[in-house]
Amino acid sequence: MLKIVTVGEIATSVYLYGIALATSLIAAETLKRAGQSEVIGQVLVGILLGPYILGIIHPSEIFSFIAEIGAMTLLLIAGLETDVRVVFRTGFSAMLLAFFGVVFTFLLVLPFVYIVSNNLVIALYLSVTLGATSISLTVRIFSEFGKLKSKEVQMIIVSAVFDDLFVIFLLIFVIDLALTGFFNVHRLVTLTALIGFFFLITLALGFLFTKVLSIHLHKFKSRGALIIFVFSFGLLFGYFAYLVGFSPIIGAYFAGLIMAETEVKDVIIEEISPIAFVTVPIFLVNIGLKVNILVLGEALLLGIILAFFASLGKILSGYPVGFKEKFSRKVSTLLGAARVPRAEVVLVFASIGLELNLLNDVWYSSLVVVMIITTFITPIILKYLLRGDNGNA
Amino acid sequence: MLKIVTVGEIATSVYLYGIALATSLIAAETLKRAGQSEVIGQVLVGILLGPYILGIIHPSEIFSFIAEIGAMTLLLIAGLETDVRVVFRTGFSAMLLAFFGVVFTFLLVLPFVYIVSNNLVIALYLSVTLGATSISLTVRIFSEFGKLKSKEVQMIIVSAVFDDLFVIFLLIFVIDLALTGFFNVHRLVTLTALIGFFFLITLALGFLFTKVLSIHLHKFKSRGALIIFVFSFGLLFGYFAYLVGFSPIIGAYFAGLIMAETEVKDVIIEEISPIAFVTVPIFLVNIGLKVNILVLGEALLLGIILAFFASLGKILSGYPVGFKEKFSRKVSTLLGAARVPRAEVVLVFASIGLELNLLNDVWYSSLVVVMIITTFITPIILKYLLRGDNGNA
Repeated sequence: MLKIVTVGEIATSVYLYGIALATSLIAAETLKRAGQSEVIGQVLVGILLGPYILGIIHPSEIFSFIAEIGAMTLLLIAGLETDVRVVFRTGFSAMLLAFFGVVFTFLLVLPFVYIVSNNLVIALYLSVTLGATSISLTVRIFSEFGKLKSKEVQMIIVSAVFDDLFVIFLLIFVIDLALTGFFNVHRLVTLTALIGFFFLITLALGFLFTKVLSIHLHKFKSRGALIIFVFSFGLLFGYFAYLVGFSPIIGAYFAGLIMAETEVKDVIIEEISPIAFVTVPIFLVNIGLKVNILVLGEALLLGIILAFFASLGKILSGYPVGFKEKFSRKVSTLLGAARVPRAEVVLVFASIGLELNLLNDVWYSSLVVVMIITTFITPIILKYLLRGDNGNA
Repeated sequence: MLKIVTVGEIATSVYLYGIALATSLIAAETLKRAGQSEVIGQVLVGILLGPYILGIIHPSEIFSFIAEIGAMTLLLIAGLETDVRVVFRTGFSAMLLAFFGVVFTFLLVLPFVYIVSNNLVIALYLSVTLGATSISLTVRIFSEFGKLKSKEVQMIIVSAVFDDLFVIFLLIFVIDLALTGFFNVHRLVTLTALIGFFFLITLALGFLFTKVLSIHLHKFKSRGALIIFVFSFGLLFGYFAYLVGFSPIIGAYFAGLIMAETEVKDVIIEEISPIAFVTVPIFLVNIGLKVNILVLGEALLLGIILAFFASLGKILSGYPVGFKEKFSRKVSTLLGAARVPRAEVVLVFASIGLELNLLNDVWYSSLVVVMIITTFITPIILKYLLRGDNGNA
């Protein structure tokens, strides 16, 4: 038979994309009907279809790309649904939340790793790295419960941005200390200037949008122009955030925030949601794809203990802020529990640590275990907290 | 600064995707306001940003993938918007249209290529290959004019399927003749069986959907389930078509056709459109990306003459069928003109010919010229025909 050879690779990607979507739909439906969160099902699908069990789907550039688009679209929508006044009101508490989360995690993880490894660099690297939160999974769960607009959820999202900020700053100290024995002041100044520049641009664009552009948005004439405009702005702002040192999804969130005061906001959210429908499942499947259950062996115990301390650090951070804000105990727990997941950012820093020889294979794998455990327990904890406390959470 | 190295490639793809979307939006808006078709602008953006002029975007697996998803989504929507009864009513005329198009192109191209090349294999290969139509560009233009549901447009789409069918069959003869000196009957039987199987499955699934599944579609409980279902079905059916020997977009069209009789069809079309908005521009940009204006030199004249004969072959094919259907002369011209574009399928066969040493560089490049010219003139001709004849077309 005449094979269309040159399009073969693309056709295979189309097939795998279709299989992943269809399977995760079945998983989501099944879990939803069983009263569970869809998210767990979709991550499980990734593990099942992934290279270590069925071997149908292997991690690929295309899957990582769709996953990234999914996470960015999710955060773009979260940004659009954000009440900007709440962000300014919750800004300080969010910063406190992030501060406590990073500090508590640091204090809990450092002694454990130091005792086991007898290596200060490893201990510092791991305890700082584990401060970074993966917000996309949490946002996915809150959006499932229709809670994205509540004050505490917006505080959680904003604090996750500060998490990344703190961790990026601290890791520069740790890496410089490990590699050269002293701090690189020049690099720190550059980074601070870049991050300052990012927030200045965000503020300026936000002002421009709200006061000037928003009234002109409905004047587009070509097909789908509004959605193309919003979506491409999210992508480009995500890349801008990446250039500064953030994850692209942080930029997508701010892009949404910038456009959150426009008149056509509801139309935008409604029309951009289908893009999320067909990309977010891949973000979740992709988490599962990377989970190597088989070779974790040695790192398993270390990972379990690290996951315990890392989760505890974040959960504890919710109480002082919850106390300050006069939240119920359940909502305070939510503030911390929602920031338990460690995923892409931690894995990125783990890879960098491995490349720089600051971490060995075992500690690297233990971070993967932390990712698996925290990714798995968070939906369960959150579902429990969200279902049991409809009045406040 | 701490570079997030491992996500660098993905971040770059996100950036290029954003740039391509934003630029094509500007082009589409500009051309729309100038009363021109958006399509030309988006292809021009691809040429401009592509490797031969600005060099910002290079053809990549990710861009080809988004382009494929765009073309498939477009055809999926075209299928959904199709009136199945019209397909059965137009089926015979569509087949005639395809038959005349392939035969006329063959008769016009064969003598010219044979005289120039003095090589029967090249002449046969080119004259058969040029029978294949690229329907996605045309569908994009009809959808811009809101004409997807008209009888003649549906006839055009169905006939493009027959085009591919005829060309695939004929090329098997030509390739076997060129390589072995005789016809491979076994391969022909296998292919016929496969294609028969494909249409049987399509009919069976169409029946199943219309009579059984369609009433259950609204019972999904998880978020975006309906869209995920429709979209992943489109992807998987596209792959199925590819396995049989068609382009995946043909499968996506039939997937849409299968689901065209469901109750929730309008909701599906509305919700799936945003996915098309952010992927179809990449399909058009990607056509432009692959255009190497600089090295075409020698093949240019051959390509221009081939494009003339190939276009004439398709345009002439509209008149006998238009006469049979009692269409106006303008609509008859439309039947042919809409099938002038030669793009992905022709390029695929051109690559195969090059690999099998049936074509040389010059003739291969001349097919690229045909793609450029036919892709460029079609929107102009169609816009003229569609604008001037609102009553009948």
